[in-house]
Amino acid sequence: MSNPLLLPEIRQMLAEKETQGLAEIMTELHPASIADFAEGLTVEEAWALLSHGDVSRQAEVFPFFSAEKEQELIEGVGRENMSRLLEAMSHDDRVDLLKRCDKTTVDGLLPLLAKAEREDIRRLLHFPEHQAGSVMTTDYAALRQGQTVGEAIDQLRREAPDKETIYYAYVLDEARHLIGFVSLRDLILADTSNLIKDIMREDVVRVRADQDQEEVARTLAKYDFLAMPVVDNHDHMIGIITYDDVIDVLLEEAAEDIVRQGATEPLEKDYFASSILKLLRSRVVWLFMLALAATLTVNVLSVFEATLEKVVTLSLFIPLLIGVGGNAGAQSATTIVRCLATDEVNSRDLFRVVAREARVGFLLGFTLGTFALMIVWAFFGSDMAIILSTSLIAVCTLASSVGASMPILATRVGVDPAVVSAPFVTTIVDATGLLVYFLIARAVLNI
Amino acid sequence: MSNPLLLPEIRQMLAEKETQGLAEIMTELHPASIADFAEGLTVEEAWALLSHGDVSRQAEVFPFFSAEKEQELIEGVGRENMSRLLEAMSHDDRVDLLKRCDKTTVDGLLPLLAKAEREDIRRLLHFPEHQAGSVMTTDYAALRQGQTVGEAIDQLRREAPDKETIYYAYVLDEARHLIGFVSLRDLILADTSNLIKDIMREDVVRVRADQDQEEVARTLAKYDFLAMPVVDNHDHMIGIITYDDVIDVLLEEAAEDIVRQGATEPLEKDYFASSILKLLRSRVVWLFMLALAATLTVNVLSVFEATLEKVVTLSLFIPLLIGVGGNAGAQSATTIVRCLATDEVNSRDLFRVVAREARVGFLLGFTLGTFALMIVWAFFGSDMAIILSTSLIAVCTLASSVGASMPILATRVGVDPAVVSAPFVTTIVDATGLLVYFLIARAVLNI
Repeated sequence: MSNPLLLPEIRQMLAEKETQGLAEIMTELHPASIADFAEGLTVEEAWALLSHGDVSRQAEVFPFFSAEKEQELIEGVGRENMSRLLEAMSHDDRVDLLKRCDKTTVDGLLPLLAKAEREDIRRLLHFPEHQAGSVMTTDYAALRQGQTVGEAIDQLRREAPDKETIYYAYVLDEARHLIGFVSLRDLILADTSNLIKDIMREDVVRVRADQDQEEVARTLAKYDFLAMPVVDNHDHMIGIITYDDVIDVLLEEAAEDIVRQGATEPLEKDYFASSILKLLRSRVVWLFMLALAATLTVNVLSVFEATLEKVVTLSLFIPLLIGVGGNAGAQSATTIVRCLATDEVNSRDLFRVVAREARVGFLLGFTLGTFALMIVWAFFGSDMAIILSTSLIAVCTLASSVGASMPILATRVGVDPAVVSAPFVTTIVDATGLLVYFLIARAVLNI
Repeated sequence: MSNPLLLPEIRQMLAEKETQGLAEIMTELHPASIADFAEGLTVEEAWALLSHGDVSRQAEVFPFFSAEKEQELIEGVGRENMSRLLEAMSHDDRVDLLKRCDKTTVDGLLPLLAKAEREDIRRLLHFPEHQAGSVMTTDYAALRQGQTVGEAIDQLRREAPDKETIYYAYVLDEARHLIGFVSLRDLILADTSNLIKDIMREDVVRVRADQDQEEVARTLAKYDFLAMPVVDNHDHMIGIITYDDVIDVLLEEAAEDIVRQGATEPLEKDYFASSILKLLRSRVVWLFMLALAATLTVNVLSVFEATLEKVVTLSLFIPLLIGVGGNAGAQSATTIVRCLATDEVNSRDLFRVVAREARVGFLLGFTLGTFALMIVWAFFGSDMAIILSTSLIAVCTLASSVGASMPILATRVGVDPAVVSAPFVTTIVDATGLLVYFLIARAVLNI
């Protein structure tokens, strides 16, 4: 298991060239644990350690490196070695790696690979990010329906070293159409003389290569599959997506959704590996746009400057009121963005959702308004108490309705609802909330 | 595959008692697809459909129902039937189901189960939510090191119907200590006469039953395992957690983190299945606490009421300024909450993180402040321009520092950092931002 305490030991073994011990580490430990160790080593040390395993083992370890270490390691080894390593990698890991390399590196490496491998890489590289095709692997196990179970097991045994998984195998016809599916569990439970076509399941859930990766991940999660077949537009099987890719997709998408809610763009590297300028860049556009939208509040307040001059007390409650409104709007927006992602709500539900959220907002405002009425009356008198509590009810109702409708409207016009989430809603609600507040104030104070 | 268009057909088959067709649906379709259909049926229809499959098939379908349908179905069937169904369920699905039932239902069902099953359920039920023990299953495959590969394969074949997975098997000693691990892939690649102890991997990554489920999920995700063994405090193996449970945990935790960022509690049911009062309850406490914290802003403004009376223009920029501050704080808080979850940052990094975030905040403030200087100068004169741009720099620096330090401090005192995220930070930053703004204004205006 990964244990930083062992790092000095490995260093010593490398210095003293303890071939046997190092070979043991490379064969016995999990690739992720080996990568963990190597993160703490220099590039030369890391390659010295890796060289004690064969190429296929090195290829297993490589995908577990951090993006930064990976880059260092690629630069620290000859192109010849790197191309051998690439050939030994699983197809999806290889494409992942090449996607992170710059174009010159890729162009330097590709000619060194066999033609078939090159074509496979080109095909996988051409799928846009976030599409199922970009996370699939082409090294899946395929069977024919005329095979016996015994033949199929023998074939899987032979192919095991090159396949991403042999626990699921897909049955294809002559034209590579997907017609059935068997698991290794089905195979070892069946009689070896049975035919694949008699034991295969024909109701195979499949995804298209151009489907969104998050949608695919949720489909796999729904059915508890280990892997799912990916087909092209003519139902030809072209790859599989496995549970581990799905887990990675889900973690990545969750991270993106979460940071976008905080009005930042996801970082490409780890936090401490990102420069201050990268951090700045991930936030400045968002903050700038939000600030621009917030100038609306200055305009609204300018309109009511005369009112403010007469009753300065009104300004005391501005941050409280818009704070509450912003939070109520964020609550609705977050809830609905979540429900859109899990299909609990869809874009046709606009009026139903807004009707519910408006009621929730009204009740929230009513609860807070009742408290505010009592407290503000005691300290600032009846006029301010009535103005503030009425405004709280109006602003919460408004904020919840706006907060709920914006993500749905975004979906309708094809924008990711996560983008128009909390911070955006808050800013919109601020300006309209102020308008409501001053209109109520003028009416109550008769000015 | 799930297709609502088929619903009328199934209804008709049920009405006409087409036993053969219904039995085919129950055997051929994926359990998740059957559950999808049954969601659209009445309780009686759903049970009529289910009864065309055997009990073990019914048990497979049951966990795919929504919580509401599940409850209806349990109430719509006799206790005898339900207990037979429970016995046939996988151990983790059974415990999940019982956790969602009320205490009277559980007490009614438990006596009908065999003693061993009852004890297993009691043991699993006693793990607190969010701990690894509460999502594990006890029906894993165990081997002994003296067995041959051939014997092991035979055993797995025999046990396959009762085990959660036979793709991973764990090697235990006499005292049920975990000493090794083999995959079915290893087994079918090895010679049948080999001994398990010679082919097993001894470096088995394990988790403790009382570890947090999200931590466990991330460990499995890191190593790309299909399943991970769970041990007690004495390293006795007590269960496994499989990739599908991990996917569910990750989806659930992501959903919780996301809604908490929007200052709401996660809903127990689907959005439309939750009453308005439930929606209200998930938000009102948060909103109330935030409103209470926001009264700080009223206090700060009261202190500067005289200044406001002299220069009403100052109040025009209050929403803009605290909006920008809140957003900058939310950006830092979101980034750091994320980094804490993925271990990119830990609680010892407080000063390092705050130092970076303060610099990012300063640069954000400087960028916005430069624009503000020019625009405000043009419309409101030099004094307001200087006050606002200086305040933006100060408030952004402050907001980023506070936003970054609050989640880390929360972790230090053992509070979930997601709870003190964006909305909380915004509220704190509002009050301090106003203080800074008025102090700067007084200094510049000399009042």
